[in-house]
Amino acid sequence: MYIPKCFAETRADLLAEFIRRHSFGTLITNDRSGGLCATHLPFLFREAGTDGRTSLISHMAQQNDQWKSLRPETEVLAIFQGPHAYVSPRFYVSKLAVPTWNYTAVHVYGRPRIIDDATQVRQILGDLVTAYEGTGESAWRLSDLPEDFIEKMSRSIVAFAIDVTRMEGKFKLNQNRSEEDQVSVAQALEQSADEDSRGIAELMRKAR
Amino acid sequence: MYIPKCFAETRADLLAEFIRRHSFGTLITNDRSGGLCATHLPFLFREAGTDGRTSLISHMAQQNDQWKSLRPETEVLAIFQGPHAYVSPRFYVSKLAVPTWNYTAVHVYGRPRIIDDATQVRQILGDLVTAYEGTGESAWRLSDLPEDFIEKMSRSIVAFAIDVTRMEGKFKLNQNRSEEDQVSVAQALEQSADEDSRGIAELMRKAR
Repeated sequence: MYIPKCFAETRADLLAEFIRRHSFGTLITNDRSGGLCATHLPFLFREAGTDGRTSLISHMAQQNDQWKSLRPETEVLAIFQGPHAYVSPRFYVSKLAVPTWNYTAVHVYGRPRIIDDATQVRQILGDLVTAYEGTGESAWRLSDLPEDFIEKMSRSIVAFAIDVTRMEGKFKLNQNRSEEDQVSVAQALEQSADEDSRGIAELMRKAR
Repeated sequence: MYIPKCFAETRADLLAEFIRRHSFGTLITNDRSGGLCATHLPFLFREAGTDGRTSLISHMAQQNDQWKSLRPETEVLAIFQGPHAYVSPRFYVSKLAVPTWNYTAVHVYGRPRIIDDATQVRQILGDLVTAYEGTGESAWRLSDLPEDFIEKMSRSIVAFAIDVTRMEGKFKLNQNRSEEDQVSVAQALEQSADEDSRGIAELMRKAR
């Protein structure tokens, strides 16, 4: 991704937090003939453990042929997006400004590997449930389902990890403008009816 | 994209409306060595005119090397995303259900061509301004800027069209569940504090 220095976010803890918060990502691969393919999936982000690997974990329907492109020798791309907002030149104090788009995105490159060990697959399903349900009293749990149903469903998916090779974080929040322009844009965006625009305003305040 | 029949949206007018509403898309290309690259950009969608071509139109910073991968002989992918929401098994009436994600996305494949004619580039900039500013009294207009500034800015970008070869629309809204499950999920999501979840609830009501 093209990232001018002022928009680069390289802090590993912030990138991890971003991916966990915006975990519904897009997996991009090339098929064997070089054609581009994308699937929208929820991902778990696992920081380097005892095996030294930082990985994204997910699964897709077995009927989705994209899993056949998941080979360790071919790098894939997973995209995570945060809020984004159109920025009108009207929002600036300066008169010399062109329209732009503020946005946040993290691109993760890595080498995929299929996970077919039944115990590991079961662990992944449980971890995904915990990530989205939490552990509160009312949370739905995998163990709420009959065992044979879980087994049947497990056979209809393909679980995989993407071992991260590099991460690119872009937080494009008008950092190339004067402080008064940044304040002025954030004020305009936080009055928006649109949640994404208010999200950008909040990130702009945090970034300053 | 893997699209089970019940989730497929093929109506050209609805796909066009979707792209215009969620016009901040993601352009995916392969560089010459087969590496994946993505840029987040606003797009105009132009339905087939007198030249018979349906196209996406945008521009990127000249410093963004991705434009060098825009060659008519290599198909690229532009992804447009609408609302998305985690669907807990708690939301269903049925007891046998696993967690899923409801979402809407349109994938557009096409052949890119660089636009370097100054008059056409100027037209594209004007059309983008109109798309996001509207034509109201308070709208910002390109002509609000000094002519030499517009010319300078125009030289720092690369404009391009993607001539559409195929479009894939996926509206994953629990259409594979019973009507009472769909009603129940929509009711749960519309009570969410999250705008995306409420957006999915609205689309689910429209889809039924």
